[in-house]
Amino acid sequence: MPIEKISLAQKLSLFDDRWSPKVVGQVNDALVKVAKLKGEFVWHRHEAEDELFLVVRGRLRMRLREAGAERALELGPGELVIIPRGVEHLPSAEEETEVLLVEPASTLNTGDVRNERTVDRLDRI
Amino acid sequence: MPIEKISLAQKLSLFDDRWSPKVVGQVNDALVKVAKLKGEFVWHRHEAEDELFLVVRGRLRMRLREAGAERALELGPGELVIIPRGVEHLPSAEEETEVLLVEPASTLNTGDVRNERTVDRLDRI
Repeated sequence: MPIEKISLAQKLSLFDDRWSPKVVGQVNDALVKVAKLKGEFVWHRHEAEDELFLVVRGRLRMRLREAGAERALELGPGELVIIPRGVEHLPSAEEETEVLLVEPASTLNTGDVRNERTVDRLDRI
Repeated sequence: MPIEKISLAQKLSLFDDRWSPKVVGQVNDALVKVAKLKGEFVWHRHEAEDELFLVVRGRLRMRLREAGAERALELGPGELVIIPRGVEHLPSAEEETEVLLVEPASTLNTGDVRNERTVDRLDRI
């Protein structure tokens, strides 16, 4: 495959479904994905994988549970958060929000939870 | 270390030196870095590591040598390129350009070349 530049806006224009990350590239063992988010996801954690969220457009609210305490981060465009493995998190967005994700090829979107939000097959766009 | 959001603009405001990536986080085996670029770097390659460049501000020109042929990609904000391992590349920027990098902790900025541009010690900001 030839090396080409990847426009996040162009990739994000190719789909409308939410909470369903699409793969746009791979860097070593990590997949680079884009996703559209709106509403609330599910509390989950990834046992063995860290996960990076970078906001491209919109606003991302990331609730976190650590050592029994809960708090939330609010991210806008150009802001990122790295969720370390094992940490329970719940992403949500009031308006439609676009994000870039970096996480291992093995990461399941719902982590330790399996429900109707679980996406087993990752589309590459 | 508590989980906090990372503002790329805020991190990029903390330094002025160019071609000297600063670590802002780690996702699994990959470091997340920011850098300021202006002028021309050096042709180099990373034998065993892919490298992601995402333009945050400015314009990045990425010259590539593949199978003896040379070409160039031009990237603006919100555009990224993944340089696969082994591919010779030469980043340059006419105006000061800010980028986000994702690459393994083991990656040396000048790859297979060692010169005055080589940065052995990575600052974490």
